[in-house]
Amino acid sequence: MNETAKQIDKLIRNVPDFPKPGIQFKDITPVLQDAKTFALVIKTLADGLRNERLTAVAGIESRGFIFASALATELGVGLVLLRKPGKLPWKTLRATYQLEYGTDAIEIHEDAVKEGDRVAVIDDLLATGGTATAAACLLRDAGAEVVKAMFVIELDFLQGREKLRTAGFPAIESLLHY
Amino acid sequence: MNETAKQIDKLIRNVPDFPKPGIQFKDITPVLQDAKTFALVIKTLADGLRNERLTAVAGIESRGFIFASALATELGVGLVLLRKPGKLPWKTLRATYQLEYGTDAIEIHEDAVKEGDRVAVIDDLLATGGTATAAACLLRDAGAEVVKAMFVIELDFLQGREKLRTAGFPAIESLLHY
Repeated sequence: MNETAKQIDKLIRNVPDFPKPGIQFKDITPVLQDAKTFALVIKTLADGLRNERLTAVAGIESRGFIFASALATELGVGLVLLRKPGKLPWKTLRATYQLEYGTDAIEIHEDAVKEGDRVAVIDDLLATGGTATAAACLLRDAGAEVVKAMFVIELDFLQGREKLRTAGFPAIESLLHY
Repeated sequence: MNETAKQIDKLIRNVPDFPKPGIQFKDITPVLQDAKTFALVIKTLADGLRNERLTAVAGIESRGFIFASALATELGVGLVLLRKPGKLPWKTLRATYQLEYGTDAIEIHEDAVKEGDRVAVIDDLLATGGTATAAACLLRDAGAEVVKAMFVIELDFLQGREKLRTAGFPAIESLLHY
């Protein structure tokens, strides 16, 4: 772990048995509440994207919004929302993906991106990669090039990175790995 | 409407009958997708808060996160999350409030703020004011001083401003009024 990662890691709170028994949740709220560390997270994410000639960043509901929004203003690009079904009011595209039991889905406005857009997918956490891969596929279906996916935390043992790579999104960077 | 408000208003999309028949929804996603206008929104919100000696901004789930997060980094302060019940993993305080039919609730982590903190409540929309007032009360209960509430859009005819004032939060500013 490098110095930046260590500084962020110090403020991440491990909450046992959330959201269900046996799962240890990585609570990022203490990171957000600390102005210096939050600014460091945004700067470090931005550093990973400055050379990508982005036209927009795309945030995944709802913790992804937190990082994508600050990044959009930091980088001077637009912000695109990927939301849970039924939340976006206009015409949408939807991607459905597999969970351990059952399925989930994510939506984007049809006019959220256009041909030639260069977009980064942003979320707080890369776990199994189901949501992030669905998000990247939706952006591609809507006409954008997904040039990178960035996360604050990656749970390496869940191999979400492999799912993104297999779907054609090999550029992946996370600030912290557990 | 001043020039800033006009520029933002041009990009707000009116969606009829969303989320239910008879309601006209103000869709802000075109504002977010336009880098210049989104930056203008954040700058204008920040200008309304620069002299408040804030220690944090508080965003209301989930569109409030978008504006609060970019504001936190712009102002160099912390970000506090107000979330729907069951989403925050640590010990929470909860406020319940009245809807037209039934009730809703919002939560904050017990340690999200401390005595002496000066916080602004941020959301995209001030409608009836139920959520914003519950959010401000929670922050006050948790020990913070709520120095201002700021919104991108205020629906004047729903009188949310009165609800906030009556609860003891008279400093309210919105970029756009309908």
